[in-house]
This record gives sequence, structure tokens and C-alpha cells, in this order.
Amino acid sequence: MPVGGYVAGIDLGGTKIYAALADLEGRVINELKVPTPAREGYEAVIRRLAAAVGQLQEEAGLPGPPLALGVGAPGPLDPAAGVVYQAPNLGWRDVPLKADLERLLGVPVYLDNDANLAALGEHRYGAGRGAAHMVYITVSTGVGGGLVLGGRLYRGATGGAGEVGHLVVDPRGPRCGCGSYGCLEALASGTAMAREARRLVAAGRGRAILEAAGGDPASITSEAVARAAAAGDEEARAIIAAAGRALGIGMAGILNLLNPAVVVLGGGAMRAGTLFWEAMEEELARRALEASRRAARIVPAALGERSGVLGALALAAGGARGEPPYSEP
Amino acid sequence: MPVGGYVAGIDLGGTKIYAALADLEGRVINELKVPTPAREGYEAVIRRLAAAVGQLQEEAGLPGPPLALGVGAPGPLDPAAGVVYQAPNLGWRDVPLKADLERLLGVPVYLDNDANLAALGEHRYGAGRGAAHMVYITVSTGVGGGLVLGGRLYRGATGGAGEVGHLVVDPRGPRCGCGSYGCLEALASGTAMAREARRLVAAGRGRAILEAAGGDPASITSEAVARAAAAGDEEARAIIAAAGRALGIGMAGILNLLNPAVVVLGGGAMRAGTLFWEAMEEELARRALEASRRAARIVPAALGERSGVLGALALAAGGARGEPPYSEP
Repeated sequence: MPVGGYVAGIDLGGTKIYAALADLEGRVINELKVPTPAREGYEAVIRRLAAAVGQLQEEAGLPGPPLALGVGAPGPLDPAAGVVYQAPNLGWRDVPLKADLERLLGVPVYLDNDANLAALGEHRYGAGRGAAHMVYITVSTGVGGGLVLGGRLYRGATGGAGEVGHLVVDPRGPRCGCGSYGCLEALASGTAMAREARRLVAAGRGRAILEAAGGDPASITSEAVARAAAAGDEEARAIIAAAGRALGIGMAGILNLLNPAVVVLGGGAMRAGTLFWEAMEEELARRALEASRRAARIVPAALGERSGVLGALALAAGGARGEPPYSEP
Repeated sequence: MPVGGYVAGIDLGGTKIYAALADLEGRVINELKVPTPAREGYEAVIRRLAAAVGQLQEEAGLPGPPLALGVGAPGPLDPAAGVVYQAPNLGWRDVPLKADLERLLGVPVYLDNDANLAALGEHRYGAGRGAAHMVYITVSTGVGGGLVLGGRLYRGATGGAGEVGHLVVDPRGPRCGCGSYGCLEALASGTAMAREARRLVAAGRGRAILEAAGGDPASITSEAVARAAAAGDEEARAIIAAAGRALGIGMAGILNLLNPAVVVLGGGAMRAGTLFWEAMEEELARRALEASRRAARIVPAALGERSGVLGALALAAGGARGEPPYSEP
């Protein structure tokens, strides 16, 4: 048993559960990844979460339960009340996740949204270590993010801060899932790239992309676009560059508003490569105020798919120490 | 002499100097407003600042000097080094304002940019009192702002945070003074409204606006646009509504990113009236995430032209108490 006890962390996604145990300094003891039984309903998922913690504890030969559990869940949610308001991938609405897990496990549970905890993970153990002010942006199916200001997670008045994906980047742009138009998420996400590619194909173009998707328009994904681009296809390259530019425009606004020391970029879309990154940097150079641009290191995330679970461990460790990692109570 | 001593505050503008004395709770003892001798050069201005403090002290019959002086100056500047990098209205470049005023007055001087101190003033004594997280936006010739997060001024990594005016609102919009395109400032400021009106007049339209400007295209200002709009002119009304919509688009991004409890709107453009305000609220309703929109009270600034000097007094009082009002050292 680690001196001072240990904590548990869970990154709960729509398809997989990533769970780990660590000591209070964030040294991981062991970890596991299991599918999320989303279709079996809420009860099945929370029992699976509790079982994952028990299994890790047993495998590590730890005699007692963890001091606390940190959980990152898809939002919107209320960290203080411990309630997930809405998680479409899981089919959840207004579920008291914190209270239910505390009942099942008998230990204090700390809850936050997955992007906030990925930000915290990168700040404590990854690419943002030591930065006073860090912005985390993740570009994958959607665009999410989290803010670590003054070394602590900034949550805003009602826990809704950090919705980087819903900065307006082009007011006449495509409709966003949030109801607005031209949000960063509607222009730079993997979903947005796939939508543009499908539009191209529907218009009788985008032949290389369609081929990369196996010839089926319905199978066009951002990965297919990336494959076609890697093979030199100009249409695919243009889609990726447009997404990168949208990210640069949104990020310029973030630099001008928050003047962070570090911006950490995570998520699958970062694998779109130098084309995406260069388009982003070009817009940043045009649009960010020089002092704030020079002040910010823009770096890829360092923890890959472990950023969320490591953030959950940091949250649990902070809670166990009586020092929750938030910018205020 | 107030118990515990008193402090001085100065809001230094391109045309006027606003100075005041107050006790450590921000109760103003006396104040004065004098023109800025900008054309006489830097030395003349700092002597005038020092003289204003001396004059106030004498008029109030205070036996000793203030505990500290807070100064709000046009940025960009470095609050820690006490240097104003650039103040075009004053013709300044890289001037050591803090050190020079400390030499002239013999008391500690705290420096920050005018928009940050207006934000602090509204937070301590005005429309944002008691808010954990407050965003201040001022719309006048330009668009500026300041962030009070966790009850303290948030400055960012290098003192550049809060540049609300340089959020990109329309990437294909008009060129901004900062070099980018379609910034909030380039679309919602008084300068932007006047530019649109002049463009209209140059195209042979905008007759009512031209009349409101006395018939001289070069004299068209946002005030002339506001007068024509108040008289019912549709072209003027459209210009004001477009500016209000731009503010709403930018503000939606700010709500989604920072989830503030209060947004305080100051500056002359707020006098453009309900048309401006309603256009802004319409975009906010379309574009801000519902929870963050419901969490934020959007209110007009309460301190008028005194917000900056009251913020300077709060800065000086914090400094005198050894508790500078910043979110971190």
C-alpha cells in the first residue's frame, strides 16, 4: 500500500472506460481499459465502473479501498451536485453519478467533465507541466477544451467554462450541434471534415477521398480524408487546411483573451499532420496580438488517451488532500 | 487623515487626466479632472500627474502623502516592470512610467492598463460587485475589456489578457488596427460604425446620416449615426444593429469560454440605445450555450467615466495592504 494511501481515477467515454489507481503524487499503480456497456443502461455502467475499481484494487493486492475516486464523464454536468445533465452517447439525462458511485464504493467521488480532466492531466503530468495559465484544446469528433488558470482548473460561474468548441469562428458558417452557426466545432472537428468531404462527393467531386473510404459515400470519415491527403490529393488537403485555419482563427481569439503560457492540442485530428498544424499557425500569425502569440507555446498533448484518466487521478488526489484543484470553491 | 491612511488613483487618458484620493475602503475623498498635456511630451505629462496628486492632497488638507498611487494608462504595457510599451494617443514608446512617478512622488506606484482598471472598478464598486467571475467590455472608439476571475484581475502570462476587442467575429470582415480582419473592434466600435456610414455616403447613400453630420462626409462619426438612427433613419439603424450583432457574436464566444456570472458593458456606444442592445441579445440567444447564457447577467456599467479611476484606487489600496488584486503574483 503506498504511503499515505492511493486514489482511483476513471475516464468514462461512450465506448470505453479507462480506469487507473495511483499514489497521491500521480504515480500510476495499475490501469485497465474495458468497453462501456452503454446499451445496457445507466445501472450497468455504474456497476461496471465500481467493478473496475475493485478489480484494479484486487490485482494490485491493495488491502483497503482508495481514498477517493475521480471521474471524468461526458458533459454537460454539475461537478458540485455530481449530476450529469446530458450524455447523448450514453443515453443519460440528469443522473446522480457522484451519489450513486459513492453508495456503491463507499468512498468520496469527485466528478468533472472529460475535457476539463484531460486539461488537468496534461497540466499536472503532461505537456502543460508548470504553466501558470494553460489552455487545452482537443480536436476529434468534436472540439472540446479546458482552462487551467493560475495553476488550477477554471470552471466558471456554473461549471460551464472551457467550451472552446463553441467559439464562433465564422458567423455564416455551417450549423453547429449547439444550435449556433460557424462554431469552431462545426468547422475544425473530424465530423466537420467528413461533412465537407461528403458534400464534395455528393457534388460529383472528391474522387480520391471516396476511394480512400472504400467507395461508399456513407463511409467517408475524417480518417479517409487524412488518408487521401497523405497520398497527395488536393481536395482532401484543402479540407484539412480549412479545418486547421478555423482552429487558428479560434485560437487567436483565445490567445488575445486569455494570454496563456501554453496551449496544449490533443485529440485524433492532431494526427492530420503538418498540413493541419501549418494552416493553424498561419492564421495565428495573422490574427493573434504579437505579445500574446510570442508568450504562448503551442504544443501537442503528451499523454495521448491517458490524459483524462490522469486528470481524474489528480482530481481524486486533490480531493483526498482537501485541496481540490479548482480556481475557487 | 483617514484612519489607516489614504491612496491616490489616476486614470490617464489621451485627452484627460482623472485623479482622485480615497480611503482604503474606496470612499472617495476628492477628485479632479484636467486636460492631458499630451502635445507637451512625456515629461510634462508625468509632472502634471504628480501635480494632480499634490493638489488633491493639499485641497483635502491631508498632512502626509498617499500610501500608494494606482495608475491606469493606455496599453500595451507591462504592469510588473511598470513600463508603457506604446501609447499612440500620448506619443509614448517604452516609457518607465512607474519608476518615474515613484521618483517624483516618493510613494509606491502600481500600474495597469485602463481597461483592466475599469474592470476592477466596476467589480469593486460598480455593476459587478460580488461576482466571482466578471467580464468587462467597453465599446467606444475601440473595444476593450478586462477579466475579473475568482474575484481578482486576470492578466495572463505576460499581462496581455482581456483583449476582448480582438476576438475574431468574422474572418472575412474589415481589416482591424491590430492587423487581423473582422475583429470585434473592427465591427462593433464607434470607429467601425463611422467607417460603415462613410462607406454608405461615398456610395451616394446615407443621406440622413450625412445631414446629421452637418453635410460634411469627413465629419461623420458614430454619434451622427446614432442621431440619424434616433430620428428613424433605416440605414443608420442597420449600421447600429450590425454593430450590436457583432458584439453579441463575440460575447457568445466569451460566455461559452468563460461562463462568467456577470458581463458589464461600458463605453459610449452603450448610449446607442435599445437597438444596439437588442441586436446583441438576439445573437447571444442564438449562439451562447443555454446554461452559460442563463448564468450570466448582462448589465450596463454603473460608474460611467469614473470606473477607471475607482479601479486605480482599488489597485493602490490592494498594493498598500500588500494584497494586489491579481489572480496571481
